[in-house]
Amino acid sequence: MRKIHVIGIGAGDPDQLTLQAVRALRSTDVFFLLDKGEVKADLTALRRDMLDAHVEEGTYRVVEARDPERDRRAGGAAYSPAVGDWRSARADIYERLIAEELGEEQTGAFLVWGDPSLYDSTLAILEEVLQRGAVTFEYDVVPGISSVSALVARHRTGLNRVARPVQITTGRRLAEGFPEGVDDVVVMLDAHQAFRRYADEDVDIYWGAYIGTPDEILVSGPIAEAAPRIERLRAEARERKGWIMDTYLLRRHPRD
Amino acid sequence: MRKIHVIGIGAGDPDQLTLQAVRALRSTDVFFLLDKGEVKADLTALRRDMLDAHVEEGTYRVVEARDPERDRRAGGAAYSPAVGDWRSARADIYERLIAEELGEEQTGAFLVWGDPSLYDSTLAILEEVLQRGAVTFEYDVVPGISSVSALVARHRTGLNRVARPVQITTGRRLAEGFPEGVDDVVVMLDAHQAFRRYADEDVDIYWGAYIGTPDEILVSGPIAEAAPRIERLRAEARERKGWIMDTYLLRRHPRD
Ligand SMILES: C[S@@+](CC[C@H](N)C(=O)[O-])C[C@H]1O[C@@H](n2cnc3c(N)ncnc32)[C@H](O)[C@@H]1O
Ligand SMILES: C[S@@+](CC[C@H](N)C(=O)[O-])C[C@H]1O[C@@H](n2cnc3c(N)ncnc32)[C@H](O)[C@@H]1O
Repeated sequence: MRKIHVIGIGAGDPDQLTLQAVRALRSTDVFFLLDKGEVKADLTALRRDMLDAHVEEGTYRVVEARDPERDRRAGGAAYSPAVGDWRSARADIYERLIAEELGEEQTGAFLVWGDPSLYDSTLAILEEVLQRGAVTFEYDVVPGISSVSALVARHRTGLNRVARPVQITTGRRLAEGFPEGVDDVVVMLDAHQAFRRYADEDVDIYWGAYIGTPDEILVSGPIAEAAPRIERLRAEARERKGWIMDTYLLRRHPRD
Repeated sequence: MRKIHVIGIGAGDPDQLTLQAVRALRSTDVFFLLDKGEVKADLTALRRDMLDAHVEEGTYRVVEARDPERDRRAGGAAYSPAVGDWRSARADIYERLIAEELGEEQTGAFLVWGDPSLYDSTLAILEEVLQRGAVTFEYDVVPGISSVSALVARHRTGLNRVARPVQITTGRRLAEGFPEGVDDVVVMLDAHQAFRRYADEDVDIYWGAYIGTPDEILVSGPIAEAAPRIERLRAEARERKGWIMDTYLLRRHPRD
């Protein structure tokens, strides 16, 4: 029976690998590195460095493939191709990789950025491949340090306040309004700095870009003061590197 | 200058330590192990095992102390002593430990269960100690695998669905109602199985107890079917071990 590990590798710092992840890397015959283009050449390089550092040379093979990117140019909710098509295009690729590159008795691995449980589609795609029934395999999931945990660790703050909830959401949703029923909100996948909308409110922001990497940038403070600084630093960094990955926690002072 | 590491050690599986955590353990002179009584003898033993496994003997000292537990017998919101008093009682202890047990040039560490950012007060207490000004130190935070990440990894599912938010909350809050604006909710610190209230709704549950330990129990499925099973397994396990730690994800089928 083929085996597959879905391994969370942390969000930028190679030392965020867990011992369990290192063990899983060492038991892998074939690594599938999916490159999403633009952003990701650097991230693929980081994955290769991790393998060099932790796995004995000659014990594994790396298969690189292109992960089809969703076309976001259409903007708004009008993705093209539709999310469903996109997912099944990806399932085609994963299915082919597993069928053609992984021997019946071998173990493959997908290295997932951060924690596989947050805004990552690897698990859903593997489930789709299994449901199609053309290839069979067992798989397990190795949790990783998410960019959310890494963000708040660097800011030395918690996610929740005592006995209170925290929500993790996307920039797109934050742009629609501050989530109901929570005062602590982590925002990922925000290409448009949705936090600016709350610059007049009694909110603190804890922001980080390229967290855990040598390019890390951190800013925190009352949002009115921090927002313009973040905008400037973000634009500069993006210009310099060609891409940016950032995440932030908004902490609203409870109105009571 | 004294240094302190706040180290997330994962939520039960010693292999969930990160390489960064191992490095931090190895650079520590004095470990402060705070025992909360009841539950925690086992957990203190696990921390000691981690030190044995990863740090050279003779290079460190362990200081155990009793962490005052909040008196929950009063029930409801009426804690006694008040949360504020309780926190400052803990700050007294931390302050004394740091002042008396850590040399001016030494490094101390607090080993925090899971990730220090989730429902843990170590960071807030250290901030309070610093604000009092009687001892000074630098500190950093090493993120850990939270029980939330561990839960969903074992169930091989994600926390959020595509482009949707997820909320992390407490049993007490879930008992007051299903959170607004989200369909995916992770519940921690639930002594009263608040999920039972939703047994008639179109909700799936992914539940886990003692995740990552040899006692791990996992149950998932439509809540109507899973809830009675969880109740039974939970009662048996609690009886057998004397304490239980459990966490779950509720996934409501969107009404649209
Ligand atoms: C597709 S999601 C994947 C999240 C990942 N699974 C995790 O656990 O962090 C990508 C988003 O994660 C966040 N992110 C990932 N790595 C980051 C880093 N090193 N610094 C800041 N944000 C990061 C950004 O919000 C980015 O838009
Ligand atoms: C005080 S909170 C600390 C959470 C911790 N900082 C973390 O990141 O997981 C304790 C709660 O965490 C959850 N928990 C911690 N470890 C767990 C485990 N191994 N299995 C199931 N739940 C766990 C339970 O909900 C428990 O009530």
